[in-house]
Order: sequence, then structure tokens, then C-alpha cells
Amino acid sequence: MLSTTPAHLPYLQEVKPERTGRAGIGRGRKISSPGGELELLRGIRARTATDSGGGVRLGIGDDCALIRPRGGEELAVTTDLSIAGRHFRLEWHPAEAIGHRTLVRGLSDLAAMGARPVAAFLSLALPGELIRTAGPKATWIDRFYDGFLALAHAYKIPLAGGDLAQSPIAAADIVLIGAVPQGRAMLRSTARPGDLLYITGSLGGAAAGIARLAELAAGTRRAATSGVARLKIPKKLGAILTPHMYPQPRIAQGVWLMRRGLATAALDVSDGLSTDLLHLCEESGVAAEVDAAALPVYPGATLDQALHGGEDYELLFTAGPDARLPRVIAGVPVTRIGCMVRRRAGRPAITLRTEEGTRPLKVSGWEHFA
Amino acid sequence: MLSTTPAHLPYLQEVKPERTGRAGIGRGRKISSPGGELELLRGIRARTATDSGGGVRLGIGDDCALIRPRGGEELAVTTDLSIAGRHFRLEWHPAEAIGHRTLVRGLSDLAAMGARPVAAFLSLALPGELIRTAGPKATWIDRFYDGFLALAHAYKIPLAGGDLAQSPIAAADIVLIGAVPQGRAMLRSTARPGDLLYITGSLGGAAAGIARLAELAAGTRRAATSGVARLKIPKKLGAILTPHMYPQPRIAQGVWLMRRGLATAALDVSDGLSTDLLHLCEESGVAAEVDAAALPVYPGATLDQALHGGEDYELLFTAGPDARLPRVIAGVPVTRIGCMVRRRAGRPAITLRTEEGTRPLKVSGWEHFA
Repeated sequence: MLSTTPAHLPYLQEVKPERTGRAGIGRGRKISSPGGELELLRGIRARTATDSGGGVRLGIGDDCALIRPRGGEELAVTTDLSIAGRHFRLEWHPAEAIGHRTLVRGLSDLAAMGARPVAAFLSLALPGELIRTAGPKATWIDRFYDGFLALAHAYKIPLAGGDLAQSPIAAADIVLIGAVPQGRAMLRSTARPGDLLYITGSLGGAAAGIARLAELAAGTRRAATSGVARLKIPKKLGAILTPHMYPQPRIAQGVWLMRRGLATAALDVSDGLSTDLLHLCEESGVAAEVDAAALPVYPGATLDQALHGGEDYELLFTAGPDARLPRVIAGVPVTRIGCMVRRRAGRPAITLRTEEGTRPLKVSGWEHFA
Repeated sequence: MLSTTPAHLPYLQEVKPERTGRAGIGRGRKISSPGGELELLRGIRARTATDSGGGVRLGIGDDCALIRPRGGEELAVTTDLSIAGRHFRLEWHPAEAIGHRTLVRGLSDLAAMGARPVAAFLSLALPGELIRTAGPKATWIDRFYDGFLALAHAYKIPLAGGDLAQSPIAAADIVLIGAVPQGRAMLRSTARPGDLLYITGSLGGAAAGIARLAELAAGTRRAATSGVARLKIPKKLGAILTPHMYPQPRIAQGVWLMRRGLATAALDVSDGLSTDLLHLCEESGVAAEVDAAALPVYPGATLDQALHGGEDYELLFTAGPDARLPRVIAGVPVTRIGCMVRRRAGRPAITLRTEEGTRPLKVSGWEHFA
């Protein structure tokens, strides 16, 4: 029989709204509660705006959410799994940053297609101690939702459903639905030889941040209390860690490019420039040349971090040689970093041009927490 | 740096298709491989039909899948998390059954809204030993996909994306997208006093099956080798365990009811009749009376299992007193089991009528594996 604290919590969709009516997404509103998980889920539902202009006709509260795209639109769907010890560390990352990073992975995939965000679904598996309240202090899950919902609010994407279950390890699966005019989504399979290669923003910032975090952890005696024992991060490190802790998705830039039809292909840099550029080359059946001197390396990051560090969430895209790209799109710089060339048997997929000449760019990515 | 066996596997969407072209969903095709996880993902992609008439315009292979609903349709979205030790046991359930049960949870939510299946997304977190190949034998993940894809094939729903990551515990998050004519989805919030209450199929079969499984496990010396060591299930138990191991979603019945507009409200029985009927009552602001003698109890199940056992995945729905419901919808019996009445303060939400009189029906569900 189910106890009053069921191991398998009810679906988010099935939780009654608080009778006080809908509440907007508010930062710092407490949702965990000594009243048990059902009340917790009510709190999540109360914090979630179910009515958006973006297409969510029915949010949390039924077997399914209902999404109504505008006429002439199709929907883009992406899912990303984040697991403790692989994609984040409970003892390194503040709960707010884990919530933010969970959502940004999905938003960045929408940006890569040029889709506008429509609805988010979050499945959370969490150990009991991250859910339960200990006194009046906000629990881990409250702070996770603080980070998650603040980013959701910034990009006007309502949380329309999801699931929650107790689990020995923490994991979050984010599902995002976006909308894009039919046939206009940017793909990674449509780059052509002769196209020029561009990147938004800068590269290597997230990898430089995680390197500092690892140094900090190595120099700190680990608090032996629990899995949530937090690494103390000095305030002065805040700015350096921001690209890693709170990366921004390039939604506005993706929509801008999609609307103007300037990009011949696009994807987001989640696994690192070398890995993601290889995806672009393979899916499009082309090769690429990258100019090392042109790379917009994040201040304090190394060339290696810019080439192979993941989680920068910039847009990597191609455009025809005659396309006139602005230097800045929606406040974010755009830099030409190379070009696409014909694929030749026995030749490397990606060549790096440096002052010392050209060399094949070996594809590698960072495995942050293994 | 990423080793050749990365801890975090690439997104399913980002895996190249095998150059041999698309393959349909075939039972028993091996996808695990000594060639590593990337090859494994290629295998999954090759087993997955990306082109369906149902609305998937772009499946596995890009940042997002693209779904194009038909004119006048809206999309129903549901997510369900299944975790080892909570929703299934690696040592009790064959991998095929876990794959089947993962998908049926989502399909049943679509059925409850009257939606036709359009696309599935699967995020899998698995311990390494369930992924890796040991010789020519099919691995656990191959057999998981056998069960998953056989059911997907039966309901014509393509696997359009997902994610895969190594994890200390096994978990699966299923995301399903369905389509329903705009404004026609059946909801759980629209039952009215005076409506009659109906159920498809029978109740308690899954709970009776799991009870037999638990007996079997209690009588068996546990194989001490690994977490995947399987409970030996005698062949004669096959039929008894089927409702638990391989439940069927009521898609055809849901679509039938939606098209005719006969149901005033509907949901699926996933947590147990008492729990789900309470959801219906609360969301609709009504109360219910259930006639114990009318309940279609599965052969061999008890009344308690029919009232409180979960995972039967039948449709529970209401219809006006003048609605003419057939006795069978698409091959599945439909039984009237009670009626909806006005909600009164201080009165129970659900009343059970038995030969001994009426009593409040206490809501409880089964916690199978805690």
C-alpha cells in the first residue's frame, strides 16, 4: 500500500492546483513542505504559469498537456538527460545552477533549429534528502526550481508537465517543445562546400570555469557530511564561473537567423567545437577548415578549451559566401572562424590553420565529472 | 578528455544513420556492439523508423525532431519516469517487459485524452553492464529495445529521439506526443453530477500478477551474481503475469470515444481505481458512487486488487445518463461501474456500494517495489 509518503510520487500533471488560483513564476517562493510530496507537487504547479501566449492550451493537471501551434508552424522537440556525477556534481554545483543548466541544454537545441520556445516538461529523479524540508530553510528542490524557473521566465517558456520520483541518484530529463515556421528549421545536414563558418559569442569559457572549479575542489578538504555538502566558492570567482554555471541559450540569435534564411546549416556547441563541427561535417557530407587566430576565445580560456571544451551553448552555423552577416545579432557578437570545403577520401574532416601551418584537428571533448 | 567509451554518450539525435539506409523496426535485431556506444546509438537509429505518416518530419539525427500536426489538430504531450527498484526490478522483469512497460505508460496517457500516437522520445540512463556486449548474445539493452519497439510498431509510433547516458541505476523517461482535433481532447476535469461511470477491460490483473511474482521471488533463493540476475519464471505463469508484464494501452478505445464525443471526462487507471477516480472527482469538483458488484474483476484477482491495484491501464470515463455506450469498443468490453454525484462538504469523495451497504472508499494504491 502507498504510505503517505509514496516512493513513486504522482505525476506532475495529476496534481491539483492550489485553490488560491494560478501564480506566476516567482523567484524564491518555497515549494517544499513538511506536508509531504503531494503538497510539494501542488507547490510546483502553483509556481508554474500554465497559460502562455505561446501555445500551451492545457498545462499541469491532466494526463497530457495540450499544445496548439500557430497556423503554418511545426514543432521542434528535444530531450536531454542530466545525471549527478556525469553532468553536474551535487557537492560542486549550487542547486540553482543545476536547475539553470538542466533547462539551458534544451533551450540551446531549440536555438540551433531557430525555434521559439513553447513548453517545457521536466522529469526529476531525486534522493529523498533533496526533496524533504528541514525547518523553514528552502530545500535543495526549491532552489533547483529557483534556477530552472528564472531561466524559463526569461525565455517565456512555461513548465507544462513532467514527473517526479524518488531515486538513489539525482537525475533530470528536460523535454522542450519549440515552434518554427514549416520547412524553415535550420538543420545540421545542409552545409555546402564554399559556405563560410560562423560562431556566436565566445568559446572555452565553460571549460575554463570548470577547470577553476576542479582546482578549487582539489584544494579543499571535502566536507564529509553528505552528498549535498557544498564546495565553498569564493565570491571573486563568481564572474569566472558564470559561463559554466549559468550559460545563456542563443534563442534570439537562432530565431533571427531562421527568419532571414541566412544560415545554410546550424547546430549548438554543447559537446565542444571539434565534436560538434564534426557532426556538422558528417551530416552534411562536407569538410571544414578552421582558422585558429579567428576563434573568439573567452578571456582566460586556452585555445584547447575553445576547441574542445563543451557546454558553451553558442551557435555554430554556415552561410553562403555572399551572405552579409552582421557583426552582432541581438547583442551577441558573430565571428567568422573558417569555411566548409569538399570532403575528400583520406583527408581529415576538419583542418586547423595556425601560424605554424595547417594540421588535422583531432576531435575530442571534455569529460567533466567522470 | 573523452575516452573512446565516453561516460556521457552523445545525444541520440546526433548519431549518424548507417549508410545502408533506413531499416524498419525489426524484432531481434542486435544493436549493442563491441564497437562501443556510438555504434550502439547508430544501431538504435537504424532500428528506428523516422518517417511515419503520422507527422514526424525529422527524426533522430539533428538537435531536435520536427513534428508537423495535421491542420486543425493540437498535440498532446506526456512524460513518465520509470526507475529501477521503483517501477521495475532488474532481477524480476525481463528486459523486454521493462521496455514494453516504459512505453505503455505514455501510450495510456495519450489514450486517456483520445489522442493518436505521433512520436516517442526515450531517455535512458543505464549501468554500463546493461549496455556492453558480452559475446554474440543479445545484451540487456537489445532486449529492452525489442520490447519497446515491438509495442511502438504495434501502435505505429516512431522513436523520434531521446538521450542515453551511463548511470549507476537504470531509469527510463518516456515522452510521447500525440495528436487530437483541436478542442476535442477528453479531460479529467469535466465530469458532471448525474454522469454514469464506465471502465474498459478489467481491473486487478496487474496487481494479481505482481503478487504472484512477489510470492515466486520470496520462494526462490536469490541468485547472488549481479543486479541483472533474473528470477526464473515458470512457463505456466506466463498468462497470469501478462497483464502486469505486457499491459495494452487503450488507444483505439480512447480515439473511438473522442471521435464520438460520448465521454464527458476520462483518464487512465495507472495508480489504481480508487486513486485515479479521486483525481477525476477532485479535478471535476464532483463525487462518485461505485457499485462493487459491477466491477469487472480480472480472473484470479481480488476485489481489493481491482479497487486499488495500479498499472491496469484501462480507461475510466464518464458519460451523460442518456449516452448510448456499446458493450464493446474496438474489441474491449466496456462496463458501467457507478455514477457521479454532487460533492457535499463532510461527505466522502467516493462511496462504495456492496451487498452489506455503502461505505466510504478509502483511497490507496500499491507500492510495488519499495
